[in-house]
Amino acid sequence: MKKILNQPAHYVDEMLEGMILAHPDIYAQPSRRVVARAGGAAEGQVGIVSGGGSGHLPVFTGYVGEGFLSACAVGDVFASPSAEQMAEAIRLADRGKGVLCLYGNYGGDVMNFDMACEMVDLENDISTSTVLLTDDVVSAPRSEAAKRRGVGGMVFAFKIAGAAADEGLDLAGVTAAAQKAADNLVSIGMALTPCIIPQHGKPTFELGENEMEMGMGIHGERGIYRSAIKTADEIADEMLDQLVSDQPLEAGARIALLVNSLGATRKRSFISFTAVSGPGSTLSG
Amino acid sequence: MKKILNQPAHYVDEMLEGMILAHPDIYAQPSRRVVARAGGAAEGQVGIVSGGGSGHLPVFTGYVGEGFLSACAVGDVFASPSAEQMAEAIRLADRGKGVLCLYGNYGGDVMNFDMACEMVDLENDISTSTVLLTDDVVSAPRSEAAKRRGVGGMVFAFKIAGAAADEGLDLAGVTAAAQKAADNLVSIGMALTPCIIPQHGKPTFELGENEMEMGMGIHGERGIYRSAIKTADEIADEMLDQLVSDQPLEAGARIALLVNSLGATRKRSFISFTAVSGPGSTLSG
Repeated sequence: MKKILNQPAHYVDEMLEGMILAHPDIYAQPSRRVVARAGGAAEGQVGIVSGGGSGHLPVFTGYVGEGFLSACAVGDVFASPSAEQMAEAIRLADRGKGVLCLYGNYGGDVMNFDMACEMVDLENDISTSTVLLTDDVVSAPRSEAAKRRGVGGMVFAFKIAGAAADEGLDLAGVTAAAQKAADNLVSIGMALTPCIIPQHGKPTFELGENEMEMGMGIHGERGIYRSAIKTADEIADEMLDQLVSDQPLEAGARIALLVNSLGATRKRSFISFTAVSGPGSTLSG
Repeated sequence: MKKILNQPAHYVDEMLEGMILAHPDIYAQPSRRVVARAGGAAEGQVGIVSGGGSGHLPVFTGYVGEGFLSACAVGDVFASPSAEQMAEAIRLADRGKGVLCLYGNYGGDVMNFDMACEMVDLENDISTSTVLLTDDVVSAPRSEAAKRRGVGGMVFAFKIAGAAADEGLDLAGVTAAAQKAADNLVSIGMALTPCIIPQHGKPTFELGENEMEMGMGIHGERGIYRSAIKTADEIADEMLDQLVSDQPLEAGARIALLVNSLGATRKRSFISFTAVSGPGSTLSG
């Protein structure tokens, strides 16, 4: 395992410590593995909270800040944070206007966020809403789009929901803006190399020396096929074809396209294409 | 070779084409492998030009833009651009106030930039000055600091020289600001994996499965030792010790620290530490 680390078990906490030491004007850690804005959540605004496993930086933690998230709950690498951590993030985000929980559609996260929302409703009388990101087009067919996983699209959803909160929309308005973004987001990933979870120290699967996998998920979830490495043009064409066939575009539609790596302690050869339609486009949703 | 590419021979030109298509408001390519600001060099200001081989993005090309470089000449991967390309970059940067050539201390680049400066002096009557970046502390002892190579420090030098030009300083003033930055910059790199030049397709050297190399240069130049991979804390301590012993700091000195990867078509496990002293510090130079 070629990673620059100390004790693998300390990786997540040291990563958070480093983020906060480097950017004390942006991030604060009011309790263990809960990151909030340094200056606290914005007064008079709806709060926005996300959360999920570590190992995907800058998602999710890095997006805490002005115009983005109010707070974030952080789990171990590829593992959901606890409901109690999520409830604490919601409490920190609340300024009396309610809190939107905006995160990727993964079983553990959904279960724990649902529990956290019940906790803050009962214990703190905080209103919450939930929008799940389901942008990974190859993780389930469109007819079962609610089963899809969330990947790079959440960056756009954080930005759009953050802008709606900054404009003073109420919880229903911020939730509707985030849901509209979620409905118009499509992503696809591909990989040249496997993931290595620091505490395991070994790849979670193998890819041959000249092999790629199309459609791989953010935790190394199986994609749609393996083949010899194709050219950059072929890979880009295929990925864009998958996105456009899932969310057909009319001529003149305006979209935003994000090409990113899927994040790792050492950069993996994962890339992801994400497209989101602009307000003037003809995408559904 | 696990890289997402088309024809390796087309990599540099396609990379430039992509940069300019993605950011037409920032970059323009007035002639082959010469990148300039989209709006042209700033009127009434000293121009700043850099150049060097490809394979180090965002250095050098990415730093063309407001407050940074006026233009840049781009070579093949790890190969100097030609004197004619450099002369063209200087011509594009010139607004009658002269041009600073600010680049890393590599033999081919120095030879070609010297030739380019003679060409534009004779053919275009453009005044030029030169500042070489020599921040890599392990590439030669301090007693032979002029032989050192330039690495991550050039980012600070570009920014500092760009600010001096924006403030309206003349060529001597911008050159002095850049030289003061260069004199106060120290960097060190380390690597877990070798470089693969796309057109060669094979690693330029081997590193064992549990091996790291301390002090490696930006093209894979030999470092100071190889060992089993150390912990993050040990690596950071050693790298900072090397920098501070080269440029001693007094208590209360203000420095800027940059931790970066050394860049590749696929991110390599190279990191580099660079420190530059602030105006109030007690570093020499």
